[in-house]
Order: sequence, then structure tokens, then C-alpha cells
Amino acid sequence: MFDSIKKFLIGKSLKTEQLKSQKFNIFWGLPLLSSDAISSVAYAGQEILYVLVPAVGFMAFTDMVHAVLMVILLLFILIFSYRQVIDSYPQGGGAYIVAQDNLGVTPSLIAAAALCIDYILTVAVSISAGAAAITSAFPELLPYNVVICILLIILMTIGNLRGISESAKTFAIPPYLFIIILVITIVCGFVKYNIMGIHPQPIYKIPNFTNTLSLLVFLKAFAAGCTALTGVEAVSNGVPNFKEPAQKNAKIVLLLLGCVSLVLFGGISYLSTIYKAVYNPNMTVIAQLGIQIFGKGVMFYIIQAFTALILVMAANTSYNGFPILLSIIARDGYVPRQFSKRGSRLSYSNGIMFLSFIAVILIICFKGDNHRLLPLYAVGVFVSFTIAQTGMVLKWFKDKSGSWKHKAVINLIGAIISCVTTIVLGVTKFKEGSWIVCMLIPILVFIMWRIKAHYNVVASDLKLDWSQKPKNIDRHKQRNYMIIPIDSLNKSFLKSYNYARNFTDDIIVFHVSVNEEATKKLLSDWEEYGIKIPIVVRKSPYRNLIGPIIKFVESEEFEVMPQDTITVVMPQLVVKRWWQNILHNQTSLFIRSTLLKKRNIGLITLPYIISK
Amino acid sequence: MFDSIKKFLIGKSLKTEQLKSQKFNIFWGLPLLSSDAISSVAYAGQEILYVLVPAVGFMAFTDMVHAVLMVILLLFILIFSYRQVIDSYPQGGGAYIVAQDNLGVTPSLIAAAALCIDYILTVAVSISAGAAAITSAFPELLPYNVVICILLIILMTIGNLRGISESAKTFAIPPYLFIIILVITIVCGFVKYNIMGIHPQPIYKIPNFTNTLSLLVFLKAFAAGCTALTGVEAVSNGVPNFKEPAQKNAKIVLLLLGCVSLVLFGGISYLSTIYKAVYNPNMTVIAQLGIQIFGKGVMFYIIQAFTALILVMAANTSYNGFPILLSIIARDGYVPRQFSKRGSRLSYSNGIMFLSFIAVILIICFKGDNHRLLPLYAVGVFVSFTIAQTGMVLKWFKDKSGSWKHKAVINLIGAIISCVTTIVLGVTKFKEGSWIVCMLIPILVFIMWRIKAHYNVVASDLKLDWSQKPKNIDRHKQRNYMIIPIDSLNKSFLKSYNYARNFTDDIIVFHVSVNEEATKKLLSDWEEYGIKIPIVVRKSPYRNLIGPIIKFVESEEFEVMPQDTITVVMPQLVVKRWWQNILHNQTSLFIRSTLLKKRNIGLITLPYIISK
Repeated sequence: MFDSIKKFLIGKSLKTEQLKSQKFNIFWGLPLLSSDAISSVAYAGQEILYVLVPAVGFMAFTDMVHAVLMVILLLFILIFSYRQVIDSYPQGGGAYIVAQDNLGVTPSLIAAAALCIDYILTVAVSISAGAAAITSAFPELLPYNVVICILLIILMTIGNLRGISESAKTFAIPPYLFIIILVITIVCGFVKYNIMGIHPQPIYKIPNFTNTLSLLVFLKAFAAGCTALTGVEAVSNGVPNFKEPAQKNAKIVLLLLGCVSLVLFGGISYLSTIYKAVYNPNMTVIAQLGIQIFGKGVMFYIIQAFTALILVMAANTSYNGFPILLSIIARDGYVPRQFSKRGSRLSYSNGIMFLSFIAVILIICFKGDNHRLLPLYAVGVFVSFTIAQTGMVLKWFKDKSGSWKHKAVINLIGAIISCVTTIVLGVTKFKEGSWIVCMLIPILVFIMWRIKAHYNVVASDLKLDWSQKPKNIDRHKQRNYMIIPIDSLNKSFLKSYNYARNFTDDIIVFHVSVNEEATKKLLSDWEEYGIKIPIVVRKSPYRNLIGPIIKFVESEEFEVMPQDTITVVMPQLVVKRWWQNILHNQTSLFIRSTLLKKRNIGLITLPYIISK
Repeated sequence: MFDSIKKFLIGKSLKTEQLKSQKFNIFWGLPLLSSDAISSVAYAGQEILYVLVPAVGFMAFTDMVHAVLMVILLLFILIFSYRQVIDSYPQGGGAYIVAQDNLGVTPSLIAAAALCIDYILTVAVSISAGAAAITSAFPELLPYNVVICILLIILMTIGNLRGISESAKTFAIPPYLFIIILVITIVCGFVKYNIMGIHPQPIYKIPNFTNTLSLLVFLKAFAAGCTALTGVEAVSNGVPNFKEPAQKNAKIVLLLLGCVSLVLFGGISYLSTIYKAVYNPNMTVIAQLGIQIFGKGVMFYIIQAFTALILVMAANTSYNGFPILLSIIARDGYVPRQFSKRGSRLSYSNGIMFLSFIAVILIICFKGDNHRLLPLYAVGVFVSFTIAQTGMVLKWFKDKSGSWKHKAVINLIGAIISCVTTIVLGVTKFKEGSWIVCMLIPILVFIMWRIKAHYNVVASDLKLDWSQKPKNIDRHKQRNYMIIPIDSLNKSFLKSYNYARNFTDDIIVFHVSVNEEATKKLLSDWEEYGIKIPIVVRKSPYRNLIGPIIKFVESEEFEVMPQDTITVVMPQLVVKRWWQNILHNQTSLFIRSTLLKKRNIGLITLPYIISK
């Protein structure tokens, strides 16, 4: 039953040979890799206003322009730094790879931890912003916010387990439509206000005072805007997915991404300043602008729909990036190996499910409130930016080839600016939530170290000494003991007994007595049935079934020589339906787990299948 | 680590011989068995007022007296009926046993289901009422209502897992103190109002109107009061725990219980009518009376403390009764067998934990609101009363000994009154929650049938045919195949190989190839190491590890004769710490569960212990 549900939801298994990735050109690559970056116009601008409006009142709209300009400047610095990463790592160079190459293990693990945190947050942030776009259009859905988020995550999980990234082209259309819709909105908004001179009332009241801006508040506003910059890494990771000339195409896409962000982020921010839209938990800034510019008609709903869609696509970039990153780290042995295995549809299913699981927990903890999740966001990605750019600087100093000084300067500027931004983000949002990320990164790095250490121990324990050949076995000089625990005399015991006799005559039937009457009954049955070997009976005052067996095996009375083997034979009832398992004592499981801690005991499990 | 936590919480294991039950006389028996019944004065009276006050206003207090008198009358009818149960079932006759003896399987299962539901509800209802007593005294704790309930349940779970019922005498003191405190309150309240003539203001306003009472409202009030009658069954179950003459003692306790209920329930109801206490979600009626009679001083807090304590004791009666009932049903095979096993402290630990688990779920679903839980309560117990009394009537008609007609009449009256009450309860509280119980009883009965059916199948499948002797084995005419799956050439493979060679020469080393490079590496290692048997290699395009092995075993190329055995040898990494298990593919578990569905395959697990 489980299998058929699985097949229905995620489709038939795919063969390993069917693994091929579609390569895309600039036109398809731009929307696929940039939805994370461009979708952030849906929340970055209003977060800036959230900081500024209560602090400086009407002046907020002027100061917002400065903050947005600084964010866009930062974006272009990052774009130029990352163009050089693309040049140097055509096989796709995330911060993890760059750091591993140039800075060593610890920095690469810090980058990995920071990136993982941010990938997960991208899902939580984008999905909660998407839900906010939906509830802005249909306020009656507001109480079901968390449910909507979880449903969206479940849908994306199923889609990605099916392997939707393979049919990526269909996903390229919504971003383009979103861009077009927003450009139309920006143009219409501009025309309505400046040319037609229509100045609609703001939907929410603005506190009527002006204050001068403190540096701290401005930095906070800037930090809030930096959430728009998290998508840059995606392009440099995706180089191998481009058609030839891959590196050139990727670099062009990165530049185009900057231009699109400039237009959309700048445009929407400009509209906010003239239409006086402000942060409100019940209606997004984009929704407010939509109502003011187009009225609450078709166009408003179209904007909301495409905003929701692009945000879901942005979450989807994590579903592309995170499982691959995790599989690379897993191959290096710093996270559980299972993350490097492909599932039945060739997607990295463990990584996908892990991502969804943590994102759902975040959504539940933060009640699906985009605004409360955002302070955690972007710190991680700027940590990884800093590490990647620092790595690049060191690389140029090592290589010293061509115009390396010029390139080193660009990356150095990137590194310094990223580092400063990281500190600004960490400090200004510390109380609101970035402390969680600051604590989590070292914890994750520690965990990754421990995992690697364990894998190293296992590898060295399992390593074959090639001089150690298989031992000499002389079956006439050894005895193979088989111990069969017996509870009552029945067919499954008989099966075990018959099976054991195929291998040896040294059979010990062992009964642990916890109930005197049951033991008496067993012994009289045994006598009557007439198997001519004796039963070893041991009392277990604490009703523990396995202790007496282990004690017996280790006692002197049971003389085992080094060349002998001891095997415990246990039947296991196999039932037809899952719920029937609940009806049977899982004592055999406990016995297994205890026996398996003994180095020199083998364990035979014999299935006994119940007819219905 | 888990072991030491367990030892700290519930104490060292106890030997089976330490199982002995303390027998108690009338003085100790009364408080232990009656806390459920007498504790219900904490909620039954106020539930009556909850129904009456909004319907008839000031008249409520007069009508309340009638309802309470009817409830007490019903109590005495039940007591006289149950005295006859005690006479007939000295070994302790719950409704389940009486029904099984006289009415057959289905009625006994209905009684069992109804009783189980009510035992669980007793915990949820009493604990939530206890929490209400606490929050009435300390209103600042109101928001932590659910947390308080869960903490109380956890404490009781730990206490009962330790086996507190053995040291029962300490538990006899709080009920006596509760009785004394309430009697003092009743006397003082009477003196203050009637003799000293002090008439304090009611704490909450009473709607100032009078209405005539409709029959339906009166029945609802009566039904609300019936929640006070759930504890009668406990005494008739507990007969074997009394000192000789056990039956006589139990019957006296039952009568005394009636008298105590009469005094307390009657007295508190009388106080409510003169002090005009009404239902309020934030303060219980007893708390209101306490304030009006004694002021908010020491005496008020003492009353609240003992009310909370007696309610916890009442919940504890379920912890005594439910696991024992479940163990009896489990021995008959209608619920999972595990419920009949005693834990390390000799308590029926599975039953205790199950009870707590469901009670916690109920508390969470109903937000710890006693008032919302009560409509579910008492239906179950009256169903079981009806069945038990009907069973007794039939018993008298079968026996026809002594003054059987006289006795049959008493039980008949009990049966009819119980049946009528059941219908009243079911109908008047239907919408508020009794529908849940009405639906749940048949569902549980169905489940119990299915469970029994499964156990019957297992028993008949396992039943040894005594004429079927162990088969003849001629080791020279058979072959014992051992299949060793190999992933890479390492020490754990070598251990399996050496182990298998102790038993047979028919060893098949089997490699499932999911990755060409890994396979190539294995084959060249194999060649180099120089074990002279060939590896069977099978490709697995869907990366499934077990399919190829099963296919191979079932294929014609692998010629197995009926007398041959097939055994799959699998090493299992055993790690030192639990979290390290997460780091290893649990493929061997999947392989196990798939292989175990094959009737004719044995499975050897060899532990390979990782050093740290």
C-alpha cells in the first residue's frame, strides 16, 4: 500500500542512465536562477519601511531611497566579484568549494553551515511571503496562514521528489511574467502619479512627524534591504548547467540579474515613496500599491497571484541548490552519507525531505510570519560571501597569473564589503534573531567535525590488512554451537530446530523461565513430543529474557574454544499487515540489539509467515 | 544513559517474587477506593448549576436540590445492586467479567470498551478539575492550565511506574483530610448563614429572573450530576484486596461510600443554594464557597489544596484500575498481549503509559477544560453498569438458588435505572460530546474483534501437529548455500566469509552494482586479494539492493533442491553511540524486512563493532 501511494505521488522509479541534465541558454537561465533574487522585492522594500517609518515618520520615504541605492550598489559589487568566481570555477564553485580549495577545512565548513542555514531559510521566508501575498488578496484566509505555508511546502516536496528540475523550462515563464507585470505596475504607477497627477490616499495612516535619521537606524534599514541579495550564489553554482560557452553565459546572466533587480527593486521602492505605502502585517506593500494604482480589480489579483508564484519559485531554488550542496558535503563525509544517494526518481530525496522538514518546523515555530523570519535571513549568505571572496583573494595571490592584481582588488573589495555587511547584519538584527544563526553556525561546524571523525574511525576499522588472509578452517576440529531459545513448543520452534540441524549437532535449546506454570507446561510438552535433547532452563527473576542467555554463553559451564562459533537461532513472526506487528511482543528486537553488542555471536533470523 | 535515567525515575528492577499485594481493612479501604466518587463533588454540583442558572435563573438553587437528591437516590440503587455483584464475584467482578460470564463475548467487549473510555476520561476529567482548583487559588497560573495538567499526569505516571499502589496507606490520608475539611466547611457555612445570620454577597452575578423548569433542562441537570457516580465499580473490582472477610468488608465500604457521598455532595449543594455560588470558568464553586465562608485566607487555600489533592487521587484510581482491566482483556487476547506483561517494577507499565498518553492527548485537544470534557464522561460507565446489572439478572434466573427472586429484582431495578440514565446521558449531552463516546464504543469493539481474530490465526498457524516429528536430515545429501552480499572488500566482509566457511563450502559472494566505478574497484581488489571463488555481479538500474538477490535466488540458474537451505549472511556495523546509527545507511534493515517475507530463507546477522 505504501509503495502504491509513493508511486502515485512521485511516479515510477527511474534508471540511473536516465540521469541527464538539461542545459540552458541565457534566455532560460536568467529566470531559473534569478527567481530568488528578484522575488525579494516582495519583502525587502517593506522591511526597510518597517524600520524607517516609526523612527523618522514622513522622512522615511526619502531615506528609503538611500538605503535601496546602497543595497543595489552592494549587489553590483557582489556581481563583479562573483563573475571572477565563475571564471575560476567552471565546474560550479560555491563558497564551500572555493573555501576548501583556498582556505582549508574549517572555513569551508563554516561556509557550508552558513549556506545550509540560508537555503533552509529561503524556503521558510519565501513561502511565508508567498502566503502573505495570498492572504493580502483574500484576507479571510489570514487565520490559515500556517496551513497554507505547509501545503505549499508539501506540494513543492512532492514536485521535487518527482524531479521537476528536469522539466525546468516551464518554470522559466512565471518569473518573466512577474517581471513584466511589475514593470507594467511601475510604469502605470509613475504615469498615474506624475503625469496624470492622480494622488490616491495611502491605505494605512503614516505617523505625522519628521525626525532626523540616526546612523543605527539607517544601518538597520540597510540590513533589512540586504535580504534582497541572497540569490547571487545560485548563478555561480549553476555554471555547469549552461550551454557552451557556459562561463560567458553565466556571467551575462549574472549581470542581467543585477539589471532586473535594479529596475524592480528600485522601481517598487520609488512607488512606495510616492504612494506612501507602509509596512502592515495584514497587507503587503506590493498589494497596497496594486490597490492604489489599479484599484481592487483584476490587475490587483494578477499581481498578487504572480507574486505568490514567484515566491514559490524562489523557494524552489533552494530545492535545486540545497540537496546538491548537501550531497557534495556528504561525499566528503561531513554530513550523513545518505544525503549523497539518489532516490527512486534520481533526485536527492533525503536532502529534499530534510529541507522540507526543517522548513515546516521553522514555519510552525514562527507561525508563518515572514516578518519574524527575516532577521535570521541573509546573515548566513553574507558569511559565505565573505569566505568565498576571501578565498578568491588568496587564490590570486597564489596563482599570480595574468592581471591577477586587478582581479585580487575586485575580490578584496567584495570580501571587505561582505564582511562589513555581515557584521552590520549580525549586530543590527542580533536581538531580533540573528543571534540564532550566530550560535548555530559553530554548532553545525562542530557536528560536522564529529561526523567526519566517526567516518574516519569506521574506515580505519574496516580497512583490510592485505596480508591477513582468510583463516584456516578445519571443520573436524571445531564445534558450531547453535542456541535456540524456546518459549513454548510450536511450529516456529520446530522450524528453527530443523534448520539448525542442517548445520550442526551441537544444539542447545534454552528456556528462560519467567512464569513457573508456563515452564512446567513446556517441559511436559517437551517430554511428550520426544525430542531427545535436554532443555537448559534458567530462571529470570527480573523477567529479563536475554540476560540469562548471555550469562550462559559467557559462563564456564559452556566450554567454547576459540575456533568454535556460537549462533543464536531466532524465529520471527512475519505478519501480513503492518498493524499486526503492534500485536506481537517485539522482544526479538531487544534480543537482537543486545546480542549484536557481543563480538563473537552470530544471529540467525528465520521468518515464520502468518497466513493472514 | 537511558538505563540510568530510567533507574533514577522509577527505581531498580523488582523480582517477580516481590509481587505481593497489601490487603486492607475497612478503614484503609474506604479512602483508597472512594476517592473517585467523593472527589466528584468538586465538579458535579457546579455542572448542575451550569445547566440550571441560565435556564431558570434564581429558581436554579431549588431545582438543584431535586437533581442532587435524584443523583443520590441513583447512587444508593447502584450500591445495593453492586453489593450483590460483590457477593457473587469475590475474585473481583468488573462489568467485563460479569458480562463474559452471563451475556457472552460481545456484551463483555462493549462493557470493556465503555470502561476503558471512562477510565481514561477519569484521568482527564479529574486532572483538569485538579488544575482548576489550583488556578482558582492562583489565577496567575490560568494560562498554564494545560502545562499543569500534563505535569500532574507525568508525575502520576512516574509514581505508578514505580509501583506506588504497593505503598497505598500514605494515599489513604488525603481523602480523610478532604472529607474532614469539607465537613468543617459545610458545618461552618451552615452556622454562618443560618445561626449567625451573615449572608455574604455572591461573588458572581446571578441573572435576576425566574423561569419554570422544562423536563429536558431538568434531565440535563441530572445528567450533569451523574458524573458523581463513576466510582462505584472500583469497589466491586477491588474485593480481593480486602482482608478477610473480604466480601463483607467490601460491602460495608460500598455503603460507607454512599454515606460519605450523601453528606459531601448533599452538603456542598446545600451551601451552593444558600450562598448562591454559580458556575464560572475562572473559579470553581468550591473556591467561591471557601471565600464566602472563610474569606480568602489560610482556610481557603487549604480547601483548594485538598481539593486538588483528592482529584489527583481520583485520577490515580484509574491508574490502579485501568492497567489491571487491560491486562485481563489482554490475557483473553482482545487487546495487544503486551498489556498483560509486568514491567521492571512489577506494575503493568504498558497500560500505565498508554493511559497517560491518551489522557495527555485528551487534555491537549480539550485545552485542559474540565467543563468541556465532562459531557463525554459517565456515558461509558453507565453503559457498563447496565451491562453488569443485566448480567446479574440473567445469572439469578440461571442459578435460581436461595432468595434469587428478591435479588433479581434488585439487580433488575439497577439495570433499568442504569439503562434509562445511559439514554438520558447519551441524549442530553449528545451534541456537547457524548456522540464521540457513542461512536467510539462500537469502533473499539470492532478493533478488539479483529485483534482476537489475528491472535486466533497466529495460534492455529503455530499449533504443532504432534504427529509431525522433526524431519530427517542427511547432511551428505543436501547443500547449505550461504550468500554473502559484498559492497567493498573490507574486514567486515572477511568476518562474514570466515564465519560462513565454518558451515559450508557452498558460498556465493554476490555484488549488486549501482555504480560502475565502485564495481570495477571491487573486482580488481578481489582479484588482487586472491580469494579463489568468483563474485556474482548483477546490475541494478533502479539502485535497488535487494531485488537482484531475490531474483537470483528464485532464478533457475541457481539450482536449489527442496532439502537445501539458503542463508544470507550480512554483517552489521554496531556503533558505540546512538547518534552514530544515523550516519550509516540502514539498508541492512530494508534487506532484512524484504528477505523475511521469503518463507525459505534464513538470515545471519554478524555484528561488526566499531571501536569508538
